[in-house]
Amino acid sequence: MIKLRYDRKVNFYETDAQGIVHHSNYPRYFEEARGFFLEYVGYPYPKLREEINIDVVLLKLEIEYHQPLYFQDKFYILFNIEEFNRFKFSFFYQIFKEDILVATGKTSHCCIDRKTRKIVSIPPFLLEKFKGVIND
Amino acid sequence: MIKLRYDRKVNFYETDAQGIVHHSNYPRYFEEARGFFLEYVGYPYPKLREEINIDVVLLKLEIEYHQPLYFQDKFYILFNIEEFNRFKFSFFYQIFKEDILVATGKTSHCCIDRKTRKIVSIPPFLLEKFKGVIND
Amino acid sequence: MIKLRYDRKVNFYETDAQGIVHHSNYPRYFEEARGFFLEYVGYPYPKLREEINIDVVLLKLEIEYHQPLYFQDKFYILFNIEEFNRFKFSFFYQIFKEDILVATGKTSHCCIDRKTRKIVSIPPFLLEKFKGVIND
Amino acid sequence: MIKLRYDRKVNFYETDAQGIVHHSNYPRYFEEARGFFLEYVGYPYPKLREEINIDVVLLKLEIEYHQPLYFQDKFYILFNIEEFNRFKFSFFYQIFKEDILVATGKTSHCCIDRKTRKIVSIPPFLLEKFKGVIND
Repeated sequence: MIKLRYDRKVNFYETDAQGIVHHSNYPRYFEEARGFFLEYVGYPYPKLREEINIDVVLLKLEIEYHQPLYFQDKFYILFNIEEFNRFKFSFFYQIFKEDILVATGKTSHCCIDRKTRKIVSIPPFLLEKFKGVIND
Repeated sequence: MIKLRYDRKVNFYETDAQGIVHHSNYPRYFEEARGFFLEYVGYPYPKLREEINIDVVLLKLEIEYHQPLYFQDKFYILFNIEEFNRFKFSFFYQIFKEDILVATGKTSHCCIDRKTRKIVSIPPFLLEKFKGVIND
Repeated sequence: MIKLRYDRKVNFYETDAQGIVHHSNYPRYFEEARGFFLEYVGYPYPKLREEINIDVVLLKLEIEYHQPLYFQDKFYILFNIEEFNRFKFSFFYQIFKEDILVATGKTSHCCIDRKTRKIVSIPPFLLEKFKGVIND
Repeated sequence: MIKLRYDRKVNFYETDAQGIVHHSNYPRYFEEARGFFLEYVGYPYPKLREEINIDVVLLKLEIEYHQPLYFQDKFYILFNIEEFNRFKFSFFYQIFKEDILVATGKTSHCCIDRKTRKIVSIPPFLLEKFKGVIND
């Protein structure tokens, strides 16, 4: 299985008074990576929302913080979908600064109808994309 | 004219690597104060949005930063509406830590229809409230 | 064991284009609760940082999202320290809106020396406080 | 005078329940642009902080919001330093989405000693850089 790579640099406003990136930014970095994933498979998130009328929501978030990130650090996220069924899918992430493992994470998601906010099954074309990236 | 007073304490995640509150939090503090204002006049923002179908948008923001705020500093905002016409209204803010003036600000707003996003005149009942707080 | 209770209301800037609180705010709410905890046990975080020269860092974060929070929702966090040893301590959190369970979370932490950023053992007076709240 | 151009795309976590970018992100976009400026003139901010021991602080912020930005909108900031003296310098910004003017802004700054937090004059080499970009 390939991993996608998303590159980023730390912004000053993401730091805190400890001089490091505040931990609440990591879920935001993961979200950026997922946006990149959806573009990679050809279904950018606004398209999903407007054409198919679904929202992707977060069910579960796990992050382990190994090393701090500092202002202007360049880092990259290696990630991919690693588990999914008809209703739920999970991404795994590794954040690296050069070859240092900074953090690992996992997010689990489902799709909901934008109007009712009820859980719906993952659209088949998206499941196909998931299979594709896992088998690459 | 009275000023309303909104009390707040600095959260750690609002600080940056300079050890002070990041400047982008001040517009958020002002927004909290406006939420407090709308409750004070009896029209909390969700009520405005859902019953009258309007959104309040920001047209202009000005802030002067005089002194830094630090983690866990207690501060308060003295503020009120000071100018308005049928379409536009402006709040003035002073942020104090004890009796030290930390910052001053001004925000100007208009109302838009939530569906069309076109500017609409300020609802009359809200104009009445504005007159009320200014004449208090 | 008692649970501490931290009360909060959702700010508008914490919402996202799905109309709900963005998930990255939950770790911030937990951090606010921990600040409240440190005040409750008599060692507010700035005191820890300045007198004993330690920083508290996050090792691990887990959140399960059950129900969304909306703008101006009032919610509360029931939480406490539930596990600790000489080096590491963990908080468990439940977020409620009225009697609906909105989210659960866990954060694990250690103490580091502010200069060297090396892990240090938890100061004895703090361990005593931890025992106190667990046995309450 | 040339303008520098900083390109960016809207992240989902920067939107709010109105479905648009929350106004508090614009000062953050401007900060990113200034980081780009400092790299452009060869003095990235961490270098300023560590080698010359100065922090750049914000004195004044002004933003006019003309059009909203939406999730995944691509936009760019045209900006430059347009005024400076020995102690103070100001950036002007225009945010564009394609050829639509989204917002304009101005930020005024000074330099402070990182230890004392007292205002110091702008380092001569930086003044030279400012002259350079203005005369380009």
